[in-house]
Amino acid sequence: MRTITWDDEKQALQMIDQRLLPGVFRINTYENPEEIAEAIRSMVVRGAPAIGAAAAFGMALAALQCESSSTDAIINTLEDAAKLLKEARPTAVNLTWAMNRMQTAAAGFSGSSQDLQTILVKKAKEIADDDVMINKRMATFGAALIEDGDQILHHCNTGALATVDWGTALGVIRMAHEQGKKIHVLVDETRPRLQGMRLTAWELEQYNIPYDIITDNSAGYLMRRGMVQKVFFGADRVVANGDVANKIGTYMLSLAAYDNGVPTYCVAPTSTIDFQLERGDLIPIEERDDQEVLDVKLMGQAAAPKQASARNFAFDITPHRLISGWVTELGVVRPPFKENMHALMESQRVA
Amino acid sequence: MRTITWDDEKQALQMIDQRLLPGVFRINTYENPEEIAEAIRSMVVRGAPAIGAAAAFGMALAALQCESSSTDAIINTLEDAAKLLKEARPTAVNLTWAMNRMQTAAAGFSGSSQDLQTILVKKAKEIADDDVMINKRMATFGAALIEDGDQILHHCNTGALATVDWGTALGVIRMAHEQGKKIHVLVDETRPRLQGMRLTAWELEQYNIPYDIITDNSAGYLMRRGMVQKVFFGADRVVANGDVANKIGTYMLSLAAYDNGVPTYCVAPTSTIDFQLERGDLIPIEERDDQEVLDVKLMGQAAAPKQASARNFAFDITPHRLISGWVTELGVVRPPFKENMHALMESQRVA
Repeated sequence: MRTITWDDEKQALQMIDQRLLPGVFRINTYENPEEIAEAIRSMVVRGAPAIGAAAAFGMALAALQCESSSTDAIINTLEDAAKLLKEARPTAVNLTWAMNRMQTAAAGFSGSSQDLQTILVKKAKEIADDDVMINKRMATFGAALIEDGDQILHHCNTGALATVDWGTALGVIRMAHEQGKKIHVLVDETRPRLQGMRLTAWELEQYNIPYDIITDNSAGYLMRRGMVQKVFFGADRVVANGDVANKIGTYMLSLAAYDNGVPTYCVAPTSTIDFQLERGDLIPIEERDDQEVLDVKLMGQAAAPKQASARNFAFDITPHRLISGWVTELGVVRPPFKENMHALMESQRVA
Repeated sequence: MRTITWDDEKQALQMIDQRLLPGVFRINTYENPEEIAEAIRSMVVRGAPAIGAAAAFGMALAALQCESSSTDAIINTLEDAAKLLKEARPTAVNLTWAMNRMQTAAAGFSGSSQDLQTILVKKAKEIADDDVMINKRMATFGAALIEDGDQILHHCNTGALATVDWGTALGVIRMAHEQGKKIHVLVDETRPRLQGMRLTAWELEQYNIPYDIITDNSAGYLMRRGMVQKVFFGADRVVANGDVANKIGTYMLSLAAYDNGVPTYCVAPTSTIDFQLERGDLIPIEERDDQEVLDVKLMGQAAAPKQASARNFAFDITPHRLISGWVTELGVVRPPFKENMHALMESQRVA
């Protein structure tokens, strides 16, 4: 079962409701772009590649709902839908990337409005299928970095649930496990939404990979004790110089890894790279509802005073100087990111 | 109301049950050292200075319960009680320090067993009263480091609740506020037990100091945004070279502060300094029950898979190279800690 599945019969999108995991496994059905934008905002679906694919289907649904027989009307509808979907979450660039792919497909099309609708559904499916293929390619490159016996620290959730299927950073770990390498995963719980504790731990159980959950703030101490050999995380946006926007906590984790000489890898498809932005500080960072921080019960008791307020930035910026390598579907890029990424892309273009 | 109060009438110790805050304010009564050791283990009382004082009263209770009329019998009882109380939590050196003070008082005594009992109660009260006086002295030194308009990041709870009264790092912040400085506190929630969210936020409300709670893993990003002017935390043990054992997360917080040029101050009385240990890695670090990490409900839902396991180290080590200053009751010590701490102690001895 994929995280995101198109139902051909119902002409609707089905998605695992990630807010309910690990307690409840439920599939929701979405029939229009507004519902999908809301699902992205409320984190029914999350993870940069997954929300990119979900939004692509949101565009397909917008086209399907357009009752005019004019392709121009569909193109206008797509423009409105793209705006709505991009605004659902500002940090991940995959949303914009997927919207552009859908709009480009429509712009270049000549034919009936019905055919355009069909093409757009097909295009969204292609984005979803590509995601799975790209993830497996990254996983193969990344797994080569993992040695037998490694204890690997992982932040947030970057598994099948964060993508259409297979995953990015967690996909690398899964591949190493499938290759028979003996590994153990330290799962950053990843406050505030606890995607590590809720989703990554749940996925690791499905794959029979041994793990322990840790609080985010303890990663550095475990490194000092020599308990961590590698760090893997995903990305919501990588910019031209290699700076990475990713789930809050990635920066402090990377600082700790750097201070202890532990290699740190960012695993993200090239669709996550935003070559338009020169450095990380230019990436818009979403601040979310403070109840995500405050609405916590610890051992049965409400933890925050009733009047408490919180700041809740969903992402942070990790400077490229702290990252040992970027795993993409084209290969592993070593520092300096800018030069080596361009060289890698150039070599593939030539090949 | 002090965190720890001796009841002369009942000959018993009263302590605020910190497991129940902020929801319930309850005072428990303790009548023997076994109960006090259990209260320390289960974190009814926590914070290095507070458990030192609580354990001192545990020693007094052990003496009071000794029915023999021989002072030697009392001294033997104290030895057993000291062992029990020291083992309750291994990291904070204040326990050992307080036990030593109580045992030294007993060892040097000649007189009746009743008089010795009286002396030991008096000694424990003296330790408690000294703690409050020392905290206020540290607060005055520390408050001079705070400027009007500062946004201050604070880890764990180091307030009145972590001491007999007034607090260490939070005592500094409170003093700056009482001096009329306009400050705002960013409260690290401090996983796993959320002492920041539960206790520090609650205390700040009592003092009318404005604050926001943040997840521990977001401190670095807030610093990158220029939102933090100073970091203050306490200590469970400071060793000869200035390395600090403190609540888990202090190391990563200090790394982030260092990376962003934000001054970081450790506030701890000289009773927290262990001159016997040369460097931080020699400090025993307690690992606690993994349910403290796992038994969390987020927005009404259990977060961890049922079979999940966790690692739960309660403290970490912050290397002295990351610390800008140590605030003690003798003054503020700047790096290098070893030399300057000795010079400060020497100058006070001469004075």
